[in-house]
Parts: sequence; C-alpha cells; structure tokens
Amino acid sequence: MLESLSGETRLFPILGDPIAFVKSPQRLTAGFEARGKNAICVPMQVPEARLDGVMHGLSLIPNVGGLLITMPHKFSAFAYCATSSERARLLRVVSVIRRNPDGSWHGDMFDGVACVQAQKDQGAQPDGARVLLIGAGGAGSAIAIALLEAGVRELIVHDADEDRAAKLIELLSDRGRGRAIVGPPDPTGCDMVCNATPLGMAADDPLPVPASLLRPSMFVGDVVAGHGATPLLQAAVAIGCKTANGVQMVEAVQEMMLDFMLGDG
Amino acid sequence: MLESLSGETRLFPILGDPIAFVKSPQRLTAGFEARGKNAICVPMQVPEARLDGVMHGLSLIPNVGGLLITMPHKFSAFAYCATSSERARLLRVVSVIRRNPDGSWHGDMFDGVACVQAQKDQGAQPDGARVLLIGAGGAGSAIAIALLEAGVRELIVHDADEDRAAKLIELLSDRGRGRAIVGPPDPTGCDMVCNATPLGMAADDPLPVPASLLRPSMFVGDVVAGHGATPLLQAAVAIGCKTANGVQMVEAVQEMMLDFMLGDG
Repeated sequence: MLESLSGETRLFPILGDPIAFVKSPQRLTAGFEARGKNAICVPMQVPEARLDGVMHGLSLIPNVGGLLITMPHKFSAFAYCATSSERARLLRVVSVIRRNPDGSWHGDMFDGVACVQAQKDQGAQPDGARVLLIGAGGAGSAIAIALLEAGVRELIVHDADEDRAAKLIELLSDRGRGRAIVGPPDPTGCDMVCNATPLGMAADDPLPVPASLLRPSMFVGDVVAGHGATPLLQAAVAIGCKTANGVQMVEAVQEMMLDFMLGDG
Repeated sequence: MLESLSGETRLFPILGDPIAFVKSPQRLTAGFEARGKNAICVPMQVPEARLDGVMHGLSLIPNVGGLLITMPHKFSAFAYCATSSERARLLRVVSVIRRNPDGSWHGDMFDGVACVQAQKDQGAQPDGARVLLIGAGGAGSAIAIALLEAGVRELIVHDADEDRAAKLIELLSDRGRGRAIVGPPDPTGCDMVCNATPLGMAADDPLPVPASLLRPSMFVGDVVAGHGATPLLQAAVAIGCKTANGVQMVEAVQEMMLDFMLGDG
C-alpha cells in the first residue's frame, strides 16, 4: 500500500480515454514519493463528451492539486485554463494543469521542451544549430517551438502532409527567432535530426530519413518510446552519432511535470 | 508505492470536509489490496455547497466505482442516489454509494448494522432482547433501525434532547417490528445497553448510564472509538459484562463497505 496515503493526500488525476494503459499513476506517484510529497496520480477515464462536467467537478475539490491531460482532451482542456504558458497558448494545447493561487487552472505543455532537454542531456547543442524535424503533428509542433526557444538558427520541417508542415511554419513565423522552413527529409548540412512521427513503432516502417545521409557529427533524436532502439537510432549509433531516445524524453517529461505540479516549475 | 496502482485502478473517493483526518484511504485501500482488487480509496475535500458539481463530475467517470460519504454530506448525498437500501431511505442518509448497472448511484448506510454486527460478534443476542439505547442522533438512529431489524423485542431510547428521541420513535413506528419507546437511561431489566452518544470521548464526561445499574448479564456496547476503553466499558468489564467497543464497530463497518463497494454486499 502507498506509504503516505491518507486523508491529507493531494490528488493529481490523469484524464483520458482510454486510460487503462497510461503509466503516469505509477511513475508520477513514485516521483512524488521520492520527493517526500504526500501526493498521488490516479487514473480517471473521461469520455470525450464528458470533459466539461469532470473539469467543473474537479475544480471544486481543493485537494485536487493539478491534472494531467492525455488523449483525447489535450486540445479541449486548454479552454479550462484561466492562465497558461506561452508555448501552450501558441498550440492551444495543455498536458499539465495546476492551481493558480485563486484556485483557477494554469496550463502548460512540456512534450516539446522535455524532448529538447533530453537531447541536450545526451550532448545535443541546439543553440545556433541547423535542425531537421520530421513530423508536424502534436509532438512535432511542440518540439519545433522548443527547438526555436532553445536557439535553433534554422529549422527545416518535413511532414508527409505538406499542408500540416506549412501550417506549423506559419504558426512559428510569429515567434521572431530562428528561421523555420518546410523542406525535404534530407539531413545534409544539419547539426541535429529529430523524428517526431510514429515511424519506427512497427517493424516494417521505413526510416523517417535515409540512413545513408546521416553523418557522425549529427545528433539524432527519436520520440518513439517503448519499442527498443528504433531502426533510425540503430543506424545513427552505427554511424557514430550521439542519440536521444523516446524513453529518455518521457523521463524528462516526468521530471518537468513533477516540478510543475509541485509548484517549482 | 501502492503495488497495483496503474491506469486500470478503480477509484473509490471519500467525500467530506474536513477530510484530512479520515482513515478510509488507508483502511479501505488495504482492504481492497487484501482482497486482490486493483482499487484505491482517495480523499476528496468537498465543501458543503459544492457537493452538486462534484457528484455530477464523478458520475461521469466510469472508473469511479463508488463513493464514501462523510460529514457534512451524509444527508445531502441521499438525493443523488437513484436507488438505495430501505434503511438508507428511512433516514434519508447514505454513507456508501456504488454504481448500478446503468451507471446511476445506489446508496446504503452501514453505521447501524455494523454496530449491531460487532456486538453480535462479541456475544450479544439482540433477537428477542430488551435493549436500552442512549442517543437518538445519526448513529443512534441507524443503530435503532438495525436493532429492530435484528429482532429486538423492546427498544428503549433515551436522549438528552427529548424531542429528538420522540421523533426517532415516530420514525421507527412504521417499521412494524419490536416495540420502540422513549425512556430514562435506566438499564434495569435490559439484556443489552448501547451508548450512541459522544459521552466517553472527554475524560470528565459523565457515564451515559449509571454504572451501579449494570448487571453481569447485560451486554454493553459503546460507539466511541479511538479513545481507549471508555469509562462505561471499563465499568461494564469490571462488573463482568460482555462488551463491544467503537473500534470493533469501525472494523465491522469497513468490512461491510468493502463487500458493498466490490459488489458482494
């Protein structure tokens, strides 16, 4: 039994549907415990059309200290946040929510910034770099913002859906930092390559970029987690690249979520 | 950390205000674990005026399997139950709620029946007995109903508030079982004596019944828990009475709640 579970335990529910496969209850609760906090992350299955009533109900409970938001609610939950970070506002996405002093909700989103942090932890140097990012979906968009925030000089975004890539570039153009452009999946001349697509989850997926174009000086990151070393990362390691994998990124997200939930974010 | 905590964990929140001092999160969760169930009881502080929004929100979450209700919500929570036990309807009080197959709430209340069970476990024989019950508040009312359900022939109810005692007798008159009357705190001729008042919590409380009137043949029960053996029970043991204490009653409540929540009730 959870050592510290009591009437004083603070709750941090994770809201999603389906919910049975999320790992946050175990991981975040272990993190709270390691930090000596009497807090627990519990799963709440919230069907898509029911978010409104659940958000209202949870807002009324003072010992609900924060919320984790997963699919299908990452976009709709943004509307319940009285305040949010700049990166969350840009995408209108939140994955973590905590209380403001007045009890209202404050939202943030660490998926991108944690990926970049994990890459830096493994030796990547995004400041001033030229970066190829594959994937302009939810993960890719968040990583693109975080890369520009980290000082990337030129960001080349590729997505099989060209419209989606173009829309992300348009969004990023308001950032006033490094240049972001749409481009082919060609890492030639890049300092970093990052895969933000699901390619690598299935055994017969094609590589997101041709292995023959990788060079030892390139840092290669891959968001795919839980499927061992992806073919992309295997190729990168064989060539001599430094790499960061999806598990390292997930671990970095957990740490940032814990800091945020406990008010140190 | 709770061994089985995961995305598949079923939630059984306890709703009350204040909530910091409740023991159900530890006790019920340990009980779920002992029965091999992936379920947890978590505290939710719910200020009195906020019950409506919280009940609605929790009703929308399929893995919330049931609720425990404590002060100040035991009366108001009754209104949210589509169905309830006869004893809950009689007092319009619920302390435990679980799902009906259609997702609506079913309420029950074990405070009285568990007290009587604990007394039977310690040797009391309510069937056909003459019983003096001290206290006609929430606990006393629940115990009175349970005693009559257990076959008590004559129930004498005493309360310092005579109106409250009279109202309880009126409520019980619809039961069509043993006779219930208002009377003095005199156990003479009784088979059982039960204290359902807080007397005995403070060191200088008077005894709820005069110790000189107790006889070895009387079974003496006391709902006061967590303050050691009360002066009433100390006197009863000294005289040679069989007794049941508040802790044994709380333990019986826990077992009944677990059976109920897990659908075996």
